[in-house]
Amino acid sequence: MLTNADVDHIAGLLNLREGHAFGIHATPRILSVLAANPIFNVLNPAIVPRLPLLVGEPVQVLPGLTVTAFNVPGKIALYLENEAAGASLGTQDGDTIGLEVSDGRSRFHYIPGCARIDDGLKARLCGSPLLFLDGTLFADDEMIAQGLSHKTGQRMGHISMSGPDGSLAALADSGIGRRVYIHINNSNPVLREGSPERAEVNRRGWDVAFDGMELSL
Amino acid sequence: MLTNADVDHIAGLLNLREGHAFGIHATPRILSVLAANPIFNVLNPAIVPRLPLLVGEPVQVLPGLTVTAFNVPGKIALYLENEAAGASLGTQDGDTIGLEVSDGRSRFHYIPGCARIDDGLKARLCGSPLLFLDGTLFADDEMIAQGLSHKTGQRMGHISMSGPDGSLAALADSGIGRRVYIHINNSNPVLREGSPERAEVNRRGWDVAFDGMELSL
Repeated sequence: MLTNADVDHIAGLLNLREGHAFGIHATPRILSVLAANPIFNVLNPAIVPRLPLLVGEPVQVLPGLTVTAFNVPGKIALYLENEAAGASLGTQDGDTIGLEVSDGRSRFHYIPGCARIDDGLKARLCGSPLLFLDGTLFADDEMIAQGLSHKTGQRMGHISMSGPDGSLAALADSGIGRRVYIHINNSNPVLREGSPERAEVNRRGWDVAFDGMELSL
Repeated sequence: MLTNADVDHIAGLLNLREGHAFGIHATPRILSVLAANPIFNVLNPAIVPRLPLLVGEPVQVLPGLTVTAFNVPGKIALYLENEAAGASLGTQDGDTIGLEVSDGRSRFHYIPGCARIDDGLKARLCGSPLLFLDGTLFADDEMIAQGLSHKTGQRMGHISMSGPDGSLAALADSGIGRRVYIHINNSNPVLREGSPERAEVNRRGWDVAFDGMELSL
């Protein structure tokens, strides 16, 4: 399930090339990015079918397990910005999506990339038993402050955790059961156990995901 | 230094994207493959210059260290085969190269992909103090025999180690100082210490490379 066409979402496909059998579910917008790029021809369509995922239309991916895509605020893939001048911070239908995964008994929301929490997204997440959310940066300017990049989180299409427009504030009263940050950049101090930032997100009801994490609903 | 435009040679560039400063040295043919693919736009040319490497023209890459590219038998990148029908086993100038690396005192040859050892290549390697060579497969049909693929080594553009056309036979009397197999596929039994195939290549004067290997000339 691809939720975006940027490199961090699609480059891993190249590690699964040739003989490995699986299916790629993605929006027509994301599939068009793959189709336009000959490097993904290494994924033989006879072994790796490309399956359109339409926003708002549930797809059964395993017996009893349904996935429904929804648009979230985001941006076009970094490497396509030059080809779509002016659209760099805009978004088209299917550019960046979140997923609602349900077994009919319970459900969770998975949103690895998200530029902001608008009213529609907040309403959708209200009452969710479990949310995995884009936790790229703690502070919008942390990569600049650390000398790693000249880009803010907003410029990269990622909401930050802290600040008045951050996800901690936006979802403070959302009635979400469990909240877990994923897609965390190596500049984000919440990765350090014992950091004040880790303590703050924990105090405000969030967990920080780790390799091998298991959750039950 | 890119010696081929296939996925196993170029996909790693996507792990070095954005802020990591380095230079890409490659033939005009390989650079044209990168230029035609927008995903490599993630490598900002202001930080990651693309430097043409012309076959037969030495390039100084570090003070005192010179690299010279030479054509070797190979094939076009797998994912470009459909675009160049009929050329799948042909090769153009700069499609697949080897490198001679020299500090003026000693030198070695590095050839991670090679379809066959022809007379010209054998003459070039004669007397080399050290050779790193394409060791993808032990037997040309091993991936078929193991049920991993329907492709032979020849179909993939890789010479095998064994057999009358293999590299063990081709370089048996070449006067090369030290011979090391690299670029070894996970189907190749020489990877197993104690295997008869490992014993055979060792007996015939070859080492099998391993992570962290260091060599002195």
